[in-house]
Amino acid sequence: MTSDSQSAAHPLDYIFHPRSVAVVGISADLPKIWIRRLYLDSLIQSGYPGQIYLVNPKGGEMAGLPIYRSLKDIPGEVDHVVISIPAPYTPGIMAECRDMGVKVAHVFASGYAETGEAERIELQDRLVAIARQGNIRVIGPNCLGIYYPKGKIGLIPDFPADPGPIGFLCQSGGNVAYMVRHAVARGLRFSKIVSYGNACDINECDLLDYFAADPETKVIAAYIEGARDGRRLKEALARAAAAKPTVVLKGGYTAGGSRAAASHTGSLAGADAVWDGLLTQVGAIRTYSIEEMVDILVALLRVRPPRGFNTCAVGNGGGASVMATDELERAGLRLAPIPGEIREGLKDFIDLANSMLRNPIDISPLATVVGFEYLMDLGSRRFEEMLREKLAKGPSVHWARLNAQLQKWPGLDLVIYHHGFDVSPMPLSELMVNCIVGPMALAAKACELPNAIVLHSIGNDHTWQSSAELRGLCVEFGLPLFLSMRGAATAMRALIDYNLAHPEKLAALHSS
Amino acid sequence: MTSDSQSAAHPLDYIFHPRSVAVVGISADLPKIWIRRLYLDSLIQSGYPGQIYLVNPKGGEMAGLPIYRSLKDIPGEVDHVVISIPAPYTPGIMAECRDMGVKVAHVFASGYAETGEAERIELQDRLVAIARQGNIRVIGPNCLGIYYPKGKIGLIPDFPADPGPIGFLCQSGGNVAYMVRHAVARGLRFSKIVSYGNACDINECDLLDYFAADPETKVIAAYIEGARDGRRLKEALARAAAAKPTVVLKGGYTAGGSRAAASHTGSLAGADAVWDGLLTQVGAIRTYSIEEMVDILVALLRVRPPRGFNTCAVGNGGGASVMATDELERAGLRLAPIPGEIREGLKDFIDLANSMLRNPIDISPLATVVGFEYLMDLGSRRFEEMLREKLAKGPSVHWARLNAQLQKWPGLDLVIYHHGFDVSPMPLSELMVNCIVGPMALAAKACELPNAIVLHSIGNDHTWQSSAELRGLCVEFGLPLFLSMRGAATAMRALIDYNLAHPEKLAALHSS
Repeated sequence: MTSDSQSAAHPLDYIFHPRSVAVVGISADLPKIWIRRLYLDSLIQSGYPGQIYLVNPKGGEMAGLPIYRSLKDIPGEVDHVVISIPAPYTPGIMAECRDMGVKVAHVFASGYAETGEAERIELQDRLVAIARQGNIRVIGPNCLGIYYPKGKIGLIPDFPADPGPIGFLCQSGGNVAYMVRHAVARGLRFSKIVSYGNACDINECDLLDYFAADPETKVIAAYIEGARDGRRLKEALARAAAAKPTVVLKGGYTAGGSRAAASHTGSLAGADAVWDGLLTQVGAIRTYSIEEMVDILVALLRVRPPRGFNTCAVGNGGGASVMATDELERAGLRLAPIPGEIREGLKDFIDLANSMLRNPIDISPLATVVGFEYLMDLGSRRFEEMLREKLAKGPSVHWARLNAQLQKWPGLDLVIYHHGFDVSPMPLSELMVNCIVGPMALAAKACELPNAIVLHSIGNDHTWQSSAELRGLCVEFGLPLFLSMRGAATAMRALIDYNLAHPEKLAALHSS
Repeated sequence: MTSDSQSAAHPLDYIFHPRSVAVVGISADLPKIWIRRLYLDSLIQSGYPGQIYLVNPKGGEMAGLPIYRSLKDIPGEVDHVVISIPAPYTPGIMAECRDMGVKVAHVFASGYAETGEAERIELQDRLVAIARQGNIRVIGPNCLGIYYPKGKIGLIPDFPADPGPIGFLCQSGGNVAYMVRHAVARGLRFSKIVSYGNACDINECDLLDYFAADPETKVIAAYIEGARDGRRLKEALARAAAAKPTVVLKGGYTAGGSRAAASHTGSLAGADAVWDGLLTQVGAIRTYSIEEMVDILVALLRVRPPRGFNTCAVGNGGGASVMATDELERAGLRLAPIPGEIREGLKDFIDLANSMLRNPIDISPLATVVGFEYLMDLGSRRFEEMLREKLAKGPSVHWARLNAQLQKWPGLDLVIYHHGFDVSPMPLSELMVNCIVGPMALAAKACELPNAIVLHSIGNDHTWQSSAELRGLCVEFGLPLFLSMRGAATAMRALIDYNLAHPEKLAALHSS
């Protein structure tokens, strides 16, 4: 911990600022290469500025660093120890940590209380008792530990080096991996992540309190399988949700899921209705999958907060437009008929045949015309180069006219731009699809109304691969990108509900 | 129409057996290249054995065929005419069809009743009146027409040439495209598809009746936006659902969606509750998206019918297993605790640390061991070559032992094998992932219990691309492959409900 951060920061802040890290159980043996990748290579790759110490009774060296035979052989102070040896040997190491004045121990190993076996529960209790003797805070066991990009503490080699606004506490290690990869593909970044596993010491309440106070965290996301102290959890959740938008994925909310949570992290999961009431009462946003959680985070962070449910859907395809409308209205949004004068305005420049100038608006003829314009304009440039140039100039004339009509629509709260890739009867070249969808992305970027873009109906591998460039450009342009209409609809509903209940929180989020 | 098919077949069967097809409106002009691709190139590519005639007032030739200046110039009988000229000119062509004894006219053009404009509604009525004078059956307008691979009538160039058991009637053209591409990626094929648009003559009732009687169709799928005659629809749906598993996606079931359906295909959509009651009453399976429809078709055609809801989930990852359980139980399946003696049997060969030997079963340690075995065994072969060889020999020893334990579990109805790609804390090479998931696919193939495989949690482009080979192999092996746990859960619930209500239908389907 640095004295700077200690002076003003939350009591837990020092766990993110170790001056030195020791990895106990580092090994060149094949199955243990994971330990090296997660807790040595990631630190080196992220440029961790503190001391890194490696420990294994066999000694030797790795990555140019000596491997000490024992923690006690380390020639300096150790703030943070990663304990990655089999569970039965961990109490001995914890005792050494205690004796050396270690501040934080992250226990990677599993095989403790989550097994449900009496001797394994006792082993975990023993570990905690030893840690308490030395005032050591324990992360885990049975977890991945800390990711803090600003502090140059990497975790998984493919995680990004740059930080963002989301603080994520996650009882599962695998869900950290999936959450980050899925969120990064949508342009999101994280302030700090703690994977805390069995929560034998540092638990969901500590972390909620921490993130509520953390100035680097603007939105809190939590994957929680259970809690030991319901009253404390309620208070911590209430404080977090009062401070910042807080999104919770409760793992193990069914009877079977609850048993699974007990088996995964030794959690007392609690009844679903209790959690539902609790989350509603404190004003947290509940989600039911990692995909839904990423969708609502995209909505919170990338969509200007809509004031109500009046929505217009603008996209390509008749059946796709009908189904988009169903998904949006089923989620609680409202697609009112288009006002007569705006319909007349659209008829000036969109052909009636093969279009739908109602709400939804199927703009297929317009999209085709603009697509050919783009194609003709491309010259020898690569598509992404052209689209970046055009971004500065704004949308094409047709799309600008369409946006102008939408912006005149009284009481319209939200525009959903969408393109269904595999609904086109003709398999189009990647370049032609880019020239159709690219202008839509620029229109979404320029639209003065709250809006989102949904690139959906991807039916096969070829389409997924050929649409990668477009999805990447949407993310690069800062657009709120969704990959299914149902996902977008669910997230927009949650966003609008949240904004109606807590307008000041989203205003603060978007001004920061 | 052939005299063979006419003698015994349904009165509508001749629409799938034209001796000749004329395409009116063929053109080398750029925007009209679609017409050529859909109605000339596709017929040639699929090897259509009848005569193909091309018509355009400008004359000329295309693909080695003469372009006649008028329908009347064609030197032979014309059974089927594709009318792909702008709507206002179509009555004149229909009159020529009438005078020449054409049997079926497919009107591709849009811009009729679906626009809601009085003169366009009248235009459609006029078209129908002229067709009636000549006893011409009309498909459309505003639709793609017919796909009949067995009869070598192609439609969209990337559609497969080989037929399958699904008969699909679809009021939207785009949804035909998306449905086929999405279904093909999961290994499904179609007997016949009719995209019927505004349904000015041939409508959903005619097609339901046809597919109910069609010996080439084993399962009926329908995307319907609306119906003019509720009583007749109910009767047709009842006959279809009595004859074969019938899956219906009602487009436009919300208020806004209903208005959209009117604007898309001029449909009177009807209240959602009416449709829900109707579909329940006749025993049809209702779905709410193309993805859900493909999922239930995979379940109906690829999963041995489970007798009840008792399910075991077997896969990789703790958090992933907890969330899988929630999704499965939320859909109405039941994950009961694993019987003690089976748990003991599993402990014999699966490490307790980093696993969950409950239900769900997290088999991470087993998967890793087998993965390394496969990797060592690979030699100079390509992975898919090895997996095809191993398919003949059956699953690896560890997986066979696991299957044997599951098969001893009294009352277990269904096994869900699953792998979450991006939940692994380590980004693994494609080859290593293949070696972990490949053996699971072989275990699913060998399992004597009803089962499905879910390859899910794909968070980014790289994972999607690198998992393509595995997904392709699962499809090639005939496995029921799902791409999300929610999708699998929804489909399994529908499958079990259907099997409990209509066991004889699924028995007939799987014996055919």
